[in-house]
Amino acid sequence: MNYIGLDKLILDALAEDLGTGDITTESCIPESARSEGRFRAKMDGVFCGMEVLCRVFKLVDPRITVTPLVSDGDLVKKGQDLASISGPSRSILAGERVALNLIQHMSGVATATRKAVDSVAGTGAVIVDTRKMTPGLRVLEKYAVKAGGGRNHRFNLADGVLIKDNHIVASGGIGKAVEAVRRNAPHTLKIEVEAETVDQVCECLEAGADIIMLDNMSIDDMRTCVELINRRAITEASGNMGERDLRAVADTGVDIISIGALTHSVVALDISLKFTK
Amino acid sequence: MNYIGLDKLILDALAEDLGTGDITTESCIPESARSEGRFRAKMDGVFCGMEVLCRVFKLVDPRITVTPLVSDGDLVKKGQDLASISGPSRSILAGERVALNLIQHMSGVATATRKAVDSVAGTGAVIVDTRKMTPGLRVLEKYAVKAGGGRNHRFNLADGVLIKDNHIVASGGIGKAVEAVRRNAPHTLKIEVEAETVDQVCECLEAGADIIMLDNMSIDDMRTCVELINRRAITEASGNMGERDLRAVADTGVDIISIGALTHSVVALDISLKFTK
Amino acid sequence: MNYIGLDKLILDALAEDLGTGDITTESCIPESARSEGRFRAKMDGVFCGMEVLCRVFKLVDPRITVTPLVSDGDLVKKGQDLASISGPSRSILAGERVALNLIQHMSGVATATRKAVDSVAGTGAVIVDTRKMTPGLRVLEKYAVKAGGGRNHRFNLADGVLIKDNHIVASGGIGKAVEAVRRNAPHTLKIEVEAETVDQVCECLEAGADIIMLDNMSIDDMRTCVELINRRAITEASGNMGERDLRAVADTGVDIISIGALTHSVVALDISLKFTK
Amino acid sequence: MNYIGLDKLILDALAEDLGTGDITTESCIPESARSEGRFRAKMDGVFCGMEVLCRVFKLVDPRITVTPLVSDGDLVKKGQDLASISGPSRSILAGERVALNLIQHMSGVATATRKAVDSVAGTGAVIVDTRKMTPGLRVLEKYAVKAGGGRNHRFNLADGVLIKDNHIVASGGIGKAVEAVRRNAPHTLKIEVEAETVDQVCECLEAGADIIMLDNMSIDDMRTCVELINRRAITEASGNMGERDLRAVADTGVDIISIGALTHSVVALDISLKFTK
Amino acid sequence: MNYIGLDKLILDALAEDLGTGDITTESCIPESARSEGRFRAKMDGVFCGMEVLCRVFKLVDPRITVTPLVSDGDLVKKGQDLASISGPSRSILAGERVALNLIQHMSGVATATRKAVDSVAGTGAVIVDTRKMTPGLRVLEKYAVKAGGGRNHRFNLADGVLIKDNHIVASGGIGKAVEAVRRNAPHTLKIEVEAETVDQVCECLEAGADIIMLDNMSIDDMRTCVELINRRAITEASGNMGERDLRAVADTGVDIISIGALTHSVVALDISLKFTK
Amino acid sequence: MNYIGLDKLILDALAEDLGTGDITTESCIPESARSEGRFRAKMDGVFCGMEVLCRVFKLVDPRITVTPLVSDGDLVKKGQDLASISGPSRSILAGERVALNLIQHMSGVATATRKAVDSVAGTGAVIVDTRKMTPGLRVLEKYAVKAGGGRNHRFNLADGVLIKDNHIVASGGIGKAVEAVRRNAPHTLKIEVEAETVDQVCECLEAGADIIMLDNMSIDDMRTCVELINRRAITEASGNMGERDLRAVADTGVDIISIGALTHSVVALDISLKFTK
Repeated sequence: MNYIGLDKLILDALAEDLGTGDITTESCIPESARSEGRFRAKMDGVFCGMEVLCRVFKLVDPRITVTPLVSDGDLVKKGQDLASISGPSRSILAGERVALNLIQHMSGVATATRKAVDSVAGTGAVIVDTRKMTPGLRVLEKYAVKAGGGRNHRFNLADGVLIKDNHIVASGGIGKAVEAVRRNAPHTLKIEVEAETVDQVCECLEAGADIIMLDNMSIDDMRTCVELINRRAITEASGNMGERDLRAVADTGVDIISIGALTHSVVALDISLKFTK
Repeated sequence: MNYIGLDKLILDALAEDLGTGDITTESCIPESARSEGRFRAKMDGVFCGMEVLCRVFKLVDPRITVTPLVSDGDLVKKGQDLASISGPSRSILAGERVALNLIQHMSGVATATRKAVDSVAGTGAVIVDTRKMTPGLRVLEKYAVKAGGGRNHRFNLADGVLIKDNHIVASGGIGKAVEAVRRNAPHTLKIEVEAETVDQVCECLEAGADIIMLDNMSIDDMRTCVELINRRAITEASGNMGERDLRAVADTGVDIISIGALTHSVVALDISLKFTK
Repeated sequence: MNYIGLDKLILDALAEDLGTGDITTESCIPESARSEGRFRAKMDGVFCGMEVLCRVFKLVDPRITVTPLVSDGDLVKKGQDLASISGPSRSILAGERVALNLIQHMSGVATATRKAVDSVAGTGAVIVDTRKMTPGLRVLEKYAVKAGGGRNHRFNLADGVLIKDNHIVASGGIGKAVEAVRRNAPHTLKIEVEAETVDQVCECLEAGADIIMLDNMSIDDMRTCVELINRRAITEASGNMGERDLRAVADTGVDIISIGALTHSVVALDISLKFTK
Repeated sequence: MNYIGLDKLILDALAEDLGTGDITTESCIPESARSEGRFRAKMDGVFCGMEVLCRVFKLVDPRITVTPLVSDGDLVKKGQDLASISGPSRSILAGERVALNLIQHMSGVATATRKAVDSVAGTGAVIVDTRKMTPGLRVLEKYAVKAGGGRNHRFNLADGVLIKDNHIVASGGIGKAVEAVRRNAPHTLKIEVEAETVDQVCECLEAGADIIMLDNMSIDDMRTCVELINRRAITEASGNMGERDLRAVADTGVDIISIGALTHSVVALDISLKFTK
Repeated sequence: MNYIGLDKLILDALAEDLGTGDITTESCIPESARSEGRFRAKMDGVFCGMEVLCRVFKLVDPRITVTPLVSDGDLVKKGQDLASISGPSRSILAGERVALNLIQHMSGVATATRKAVDSVAGTGAVIVDTRKMTPGLRVLEKYAVKAGGGRNHRFNLADGVLIKDNHIVASGGIGKAVEAVRRNAPHTLKIEVEAETVDQVCECLEAGADIIMLDNMSIDDMRTCVELINRRAITEASGNMGERDLRAVADTGVDIISIGALTHSVVALDISLKFTK
Repeated sequence: MNYIGLDKLILDALAEDLGTGDITTESCIPESARSEGRFRAKMDGVFCGMEVLCRVFKLVDPRITVTPLVSDGDLVKKGQDLASISGPSRSILAGERVALNLIQHMSGVATATRKAVDSVAGTGAVIVDTRKMTPGLRVLEKYAVKAGGGRNHRFNLADGVLIKDNHIVASGGIGKAVEAVRRNAPHTLKIEVEAETVDQVCECLEAGADIIMLDNMSIDDMRTCVELINRRAITEASGNMGERDLRAVADTGVDIISIGALTHSVVALDISLKFTK
């Protein structure tokens, strides 16, 4: 994870949480105090965010040392130590909450992704994310999906073409939309089209779509469409996949399953920091 | 909600989602196209975020009109229209995902808060949030907690004193910590101390804490502590409250119940935008 | 052109040129003075940048009125009026240089692009840009290329895959590189590979590249490769195309010709602003 | 070159070119890969930008080492190595294009300046730049002009007084304008006035201008004016100097020749980076 | 002093003072020159700002060494050396004025605070600041008040409750205002109310205010109110305290005296930097 | 006053003072409340800052109306109304303190400047400011000096040349320094040199300085130097001018008197806002 912008994200989060300073800590702990502590999982799950954890404290105070005990993507058990930390007490406490908020969230995403990936193991289907993400945290959530064993869909509106229902309404139909995109978009991008019915899938094929999204279809319709497409386009199942039987979806033969719930409804993985001295 | 910084948050979210431009829309929908549409709830819940919804589209393109059909804090039903929108098609599509991501998240927070508030109705206990929040979205999440009927704990480390376990370790005990804070912090702030045992509650009382947090206690211990404290301090129950029987907690007589899960594990309220023409 | 960031670009340019204020103008022209003037081409070429021109003055002072007399992409003649302007004299002079610097540059890009497009007219070859652009002005230069009749290549490293010579060296060969990208990059992106020899083109085909860049090849080699590829991949001619006979390149049958010189060596189209009263 | 703002300029350029990450490189080159390479001139010219080159890679990844082989202002030959580089392959590739775009542009400015300076060698005339610069790059272009042997005119509207044609129109004449500036501008600035005719030069002298710009004059008129002025003011020749016979201009005896084309129509000096292993 | 934002404050101040570069220094002192110098007090007073002094030069050029000779809060005498400095001459001169402007201002605040604190020595009254501060410098001024022996009032509108005259007008009276705040503000904040008369003090007591500000009262009225309140609330004397006899105010028994003049009318402590070689 | 950056200054000041929101006002005053009030001088002085006053409230809430009753530079009396205001009560209170802090400071600068200007009336000497200014507020303080009847010295290190004692030490003498600056600095800037003795003044004359600063000289030495210089250079008296007899200084015949105390030791002009309903 080497994205420009990570430091800005962390510094903004620290500014949000620190405000004009940590009144409690500065009032009751001397500047010279040093502490040691442990980050510990309080639930089973997939850990994600070690670089972020280290970077938060590096930005708060370079004198803090964080020693990783697990890696991104590792399965961790309730009670397992994830990292140790030592350094000036005030600085550790200044960064604690921001670090925890970030890694709990990232680990939550990775944990949910892993669960989805495991449920389609052996089928050839790939789990991917969507743009239904937490504003401001997309870089981290995209990373966490990969740490959980998934892959990424387009990052934003600029780096992938997806012709959705509203585009079809506004542009006058699938054929017209695909043709316009082929004429205007960079030749480096594939063209994906959302289809809600078998008829629309036929239109997509006729228009020469590179990827066809099977949106909110029944298992039977999905299977029909996959057979109909017959590898002439990549197939992607989508639409409330967080509540579907992913195994059944994968068994239709779709190439890709995209799941918004991986990132729009994240259950944080509970992690604590306890001072040991 | 009139916080400086809201525009920056929205503009950053738009930049994140738009990148260098919406390739699909700009390629297949003419600049002159106009559309109308409806934001619709796809689940029951508490709506929150109307000002944000309007502001996103105002910032994207002042020619867009959003007409609210519900208010923040309203209970909404699956299928209910929340707002209508009309304006340049390209601009509506440019703002759609960011607007949805924000209001789905805020409504998720409000919905969870309302559920907690309802479960303690009539007990006198107040539901509040914590600092276990999504980095970058604190202003919105704090607002959503209030829209759901809860109240806010301190906003950040600068505007409230909370002496926690790690502070007690690092400062040499509850008495010393309280005394130091009283000497150094502004006289405008109350002093809250976290206690995990009845003994610690006694120390807090002796030290003159204004608020005592009963952290991760059994219902019986909480009741004992509330009686022991006997209104000499405000009492606040805390610690995995998202998984506790809130009614039982409230029935111990505590004044405040703080729940991290309201904001660290948000289930988005599903909302969609469909063009009607 | 509706990119988030345009205002920031203009405001930064104004800050750069205004510094702490226009000493000359503020010293010798009263705040109440009003002026009228004309933007005039001092060379033949393709105009580009009307929205930028209007926006600069809107940001400097909303009381200024700019009336466009031509449109982006129009051929303009030496001596032709491009726009008229009226408003507070001080404000017009504050924005003058920044506006001219921007539209002269954009028009220079559009003019060079048009020349390239015209030289391959009727061949089916498409003229596109590269990432050899002026730092900070990419959004404007990409736009100007389109105004000149060209199309855009990928915007940046995130929204297109291009495996170049250095990637091939560092990843162990074309086959390995393509395979790795197919496994890791979003399924929404095509895979382009740079080939400098016929042998490398064969490797690209074998690896299943979607687009093959014929880099710095002789006309004969290009023709050989186009025939060899035989539409199994999109072909793109590249490498010092600013100094090549574009017609001859196009006649080899390549689909795309990418030209760095469109944007790395821009000759400004000379434009002046003269007050008429 | 030690200007505050250089890092911001580079970081913005990196953000523009990297977007949300280098998909190609991250997909096909392992994080542990290390590479070595050479920056090489592909044309003759004057090199400029070594500090920028080093700084780009330092900001991308401090583990990269750049070893300069030439200095700013050096004449370089086609095929000459300019710098060597070694470090993590991914990071080198992340910074490559931005670094090249910047130093190719700066070297282009320095090369054009040197050519102008050489053409007036021995005459006593000084070559300076103008405010016809690339928005956002003024600090670098000003620096490159000096590296090419030229000198700088005022940096922006705040640090020099130049009364131009439009000021004269709006303020009621040269005499009034100079008098107003003398009364209002800081006493630390000289007063320069643009004159297009011999008559205007007389007005300038009468008004006590410190510098007189001879704008778009014939060689004969320039000579007449220089003699008329007779060192009572500094003389500056200006107006399409990029297309004039600079030697002839210099031989009129003017002190200063200002050339917009040095920076508004930059031909990049072609430079490449090739991995050697 | 470990506030996020300090670097931004210093960098903004440097940008303001350096503009596009130090023309004088860069023109007449070679890049290789090294200098040594001394910061010296030119008045008696309380020094404050050593961390800021060091940080300014660290940000300008990490090769500069600043050696502190005094500490924040120390009484210093006219002619006393405060710190020595050595490093690149250009860099020292680039930071000189900003560093001096900051520490002269901070030392001015500390000096005025110490004088106030000394004047109430032995009375038990605490000297605090207000929000009548210099925009942009609040963090530094709050710090300087503490260095001078004072304490801080609330930092801003978000971290303390103070119901003032205009609130009372707009909300319908003291009782209503206090009740509303108690219902809506976080339970972690005390409630302070401004009272201008004995009657208003009674209303405050009745409403249960935690802190009562005695605003612009005569010494006699203050004494009456302190007795009336009788420790049921904290008492704070306020209103033009910069021009009052602080000893007399303190002798009324008030707990707190808040003085706007400490920060709204700062007399800089004169400090110079002289090169010794 | 039309400087880019003013809005940023105000927004930063509002962010500093509002933090995450005005807890008091939002808790006790309903969103629908409207108020009217008056800004009133509580001391005699020169008012300055009407545009800032209006702009603060425009940025807080465009529904607020501020009606100016005086103009910048006007002498105002204790008790005089300066402006009236009406609009949403919450918004007025949100902007009140920032607006007052800014205009009290600016009016303080203008008041001190006027006093200095009046004391040299009729002598021909001009009062100017220095770079001893409040970090972040230079644009406002420069403006206030002019509103008080003074003029501005250079704005920052980039727009004026001033060779001071430390430059002379580091560059090897006045002659060398002036010569180097003449060779390297833009030809648009005059060269000012600081002289502490009659001998140094002679060196300045010999070197051809355009402006000679007579630093910390006795009245007699100043008079001697002014005669010696005999209009061959502009003369500027400087050094603790805030504590000197300005009339006596002016009577020596110096052209300019620069006074740091105008801006480094500002006594705020007391101004209040009272709600009238």
